[in-house]
Amino acid sequence: MADLRILGIDPGTAITGFGIIEVDGQTKRLVDCGVITTPKTMPMSARLAALEHDLIEVIAATKPDVAAVEQLFFATNAKTAISVGQARGVILLVAEKHHLTLAEYTPLQIKQAIAGYGQATKQQIQQMVKLILKLRDVPRPDDAADAVAIALTHAANLDFAALTAQAHSPQKP
Amino acid sequence: MADLRILGIDPGTAITGFGIIEVDGQTKRLVDCGVITTPKTMPMSARLAALEHDLIEVIAATKPDVAAVEQLFFATNAKTAISVGQARGVILLVAEKHHLTLAEYTPLQIKQAIAGYGQATKQQIQQMVKLILKLRDVPRPDDAADAVAIALTHAANLDFAALTAQAHSPQKP
Repeated sequence: MADLRILGIDPGTAITGFGIIEVDGQTKRLVDCGVITTPKTMPMSARLAALEHDLIEVIAATKPDVAAVEQLFFATNAKTAISVGQARGVILLVAEKHHLTLAEYTPLQIKQAIAGYGQATKQQIQQMVKLILKLRDVPRPDDAADAVAIALTHAANLDFAALTAQAHSPQKP
Repeated sequence: MADLRILGIDPGTAITGFGIIEVDGQTKRLVDCGVITTPKTMPMSARLAALEHDLIEVIAATKPDVAAVEQLFFATNAKTAISVGQARGVILLVAEKHHLTLAEYTPLQIKQAIAGYGQATKQQIQQMVKLILKLRDVPRPDDAADAVAIALTHAANLDFAALTAQAHSPQKP
């Protein structure tokens, strides 16, 4: 598994975080991270088109192999859930069109993968992101750090899958 | 206002209803209606790409001038709201890319526009759709009839806007 690039995405219509990491065995490196924002003054359909446009640019610039997106089951209200869903719909569509395999992780899975326990705070997750990737600072803004955490969750799952495969592979005589 | 074509859409990932009506003054005619379905066995990103593909085909075949979509503020749970939101995101994106003006109506607005009161049942709405468009039968399945009702709601709002503009226009001396 050499030089796999994972694009983590934290979906939202106002602000979508993205983070690309490169994984080579146990080595993980941050390639890029940031946020795509769309102005509240724009009609929603135009904001979704802007999100699509910017996400395609990120993919073209960083060439990820797989994408990982946060999976939500709860939301403060239906309006928020529909709004996040709309951004997610555009993101999933872009991923499909760019032939990116898509992995989905719940907030609990992300916390467990990054910090080792499901009650971890946002600050603890961010410090772990900094530590794992040997960064000088925590990625900013928060949505960018969240996206990097999602990419790292997928990397951790690949590590686990590789270890499991190794343990189960037949021993040479 | 001659021959305006309105595309009504009732969004969903499993089933999206569509209905195109042609409006020429007070005359309203059903052009086409139906549903876009995507199999539950497909990954969500592939289903959204299929929805996009089929919706573009409907637009190419029926050439609408404007689109009208149901606006939801409530849902049974966040999972449903996110799922509907994802389909909505793709629909809004397609509308934007086809330069379709987008109107949004709440279920209450649709009931009031079609049946004249907000407590109307689904069956009453469907009978009114049949009556207004002089159809032999209610459009089937339900999601297609719902989409036609959304298109008719937009037509009714245009009628109202035209009447208001007339009433407020300066009288000739």
